[in-house]
Amino acid sequence: MRYGRIPDETIRRLSTYMRGLVGLFHEGIEKVSSTALAEALHMNPPQIRKDLSYFGAFGTPGVGYEVEKLLNHIKDILKLNNTHSTALVGFGNLGSALLKYPGFSPYGLDIVAVFDDDSAKIGKKINGIEVEDVSRIKDLEKREIRLAILAVPANAAQETTDKLVEAGVRGVLNFAPLYLKVPKKVKVITIDIATDLARLPYYLPAG
Amino acid sequence: MRYGRIPDETIRRLSTYMRGLVGLFHEGIEKVSSTALAEALHMNPPQIRKDLSYFGAFGTPGVGYEVEKLLNHIKDILKLNNTHSTALVGFGNLGSALLKYPGFSPYGLDIVAVFDDDSAKIGKKINGIEVEDVSRIKDLEKREIRLAILAVPANAAQETTDKLVEAGVRGVLNFAPLYLKVPKKVKVITIDIATDLARLPYYLPAG
Repeated sequence: MRYGRIPDETIRRLSTYMRGLVGLFHEGIEKVSSTALAEALHMNPPQIRKDLSYFGAFGTPGVGYEVEKLLNHIKDILKLNNTHSTALVGFGNLGSALLKYPGFSPYGLDIVAVFDDDSAKIGKKINGIEVEDVSRIKDLEKREIRLAILAVPANAAQETTDKLVEAGVRGVLNFAPLYLKVPKKVKVITIDIATDLARLPYYLPAG
Repeated sequence: MRYGRIPDETIRRLSTYMRGLVGLFHEGIEKVSSTALAEALHMNPPQIRKDLSYFGAFGTPGVGYEVEKLLNHIKDILKLNNTHSTALVGFGNLGSALLKYPGFSPYGLDIVAVFDDDSAKIGKKINGIEVEDVSRIKDLEKREIRLAILAVPANAAQETTDKLVEAGVRGVLNFAPLYLKVPKKVKVITIDIATDLARLPYYLPAG
């Protein structure tokens, strides 16, 4: 199903609602009001109702949402009920940790290819996946891999991204601390761990 | 120096400006207009000018900002010109990767203590830091450690956070995919890798 143009911020919040709903589902909770969902996520109820209204009416006034149904609906909107083959580029400390990270598979995100430029790593097998030379990135389109996780050093990030885009990748989860230039058809989400940690000292009490 | 009440969103953007300025500084660029800085960061110039205006006037109309001066000023605002001892809790895949992560030290964020509850890990030494039993978290206040990076499994995250808060920790960088309940005096920043990756498939073309 296609919807109209949905703001990026709504898509971002939908993924957060999904996380909250997954938590409620695992706690065995079957129904939730927008107020309770908002409270669990430190958000506000009108915002949740407005975001969901883009996708038609759900929820019953005075009762709320059925957790499992809403969860599946949001997964449908986010195209998470299909499996998406994902490439991991950069097999250093962070890359290795991400390959072992169990949080991706519940959303159908499946790392099926790993690339590095270090000959000491190329050819190694981890969890049944062989580390390949970055020159093989060009085959991604043929292999129907259109998502990539980028865990390379900052100075290699833009060049690697250009290769990924050329190979048909349309979504990049970027861990390098810089903005990547990509064509409009490509979506980049950047996770900048250091910049996030750097926001904390501001909140320390003086002294 | 103390400023008035600054919105959280401004603090978040200041850390992003800082990242952009660090990049310009390393490229040897000495002056930058708010327009050029905004462009490099995919933000808008009036927003940058407004955010910076909270902290007094800087920049010269028609010339822009001196990169190094503005960078140092923002670091001062964010209290990043001092060193901040930081604890890492959870020494699994992600924790180990974070300990080796080079991105924290330029901002004075120094991981000086590592905790885990796995007896196979406790006592091991990595980069001169010995992994300690989580029961030692209670000594953090005495050791003047008030920031923590939380890389424990989701089901241990809230309990661990409670212990950190009790031990005087005032800022937590949380990698567990849930909202942590903390008193108002404590700031939590959550990095939810899976939820961020889960936003990408939405942008894939159909078919």
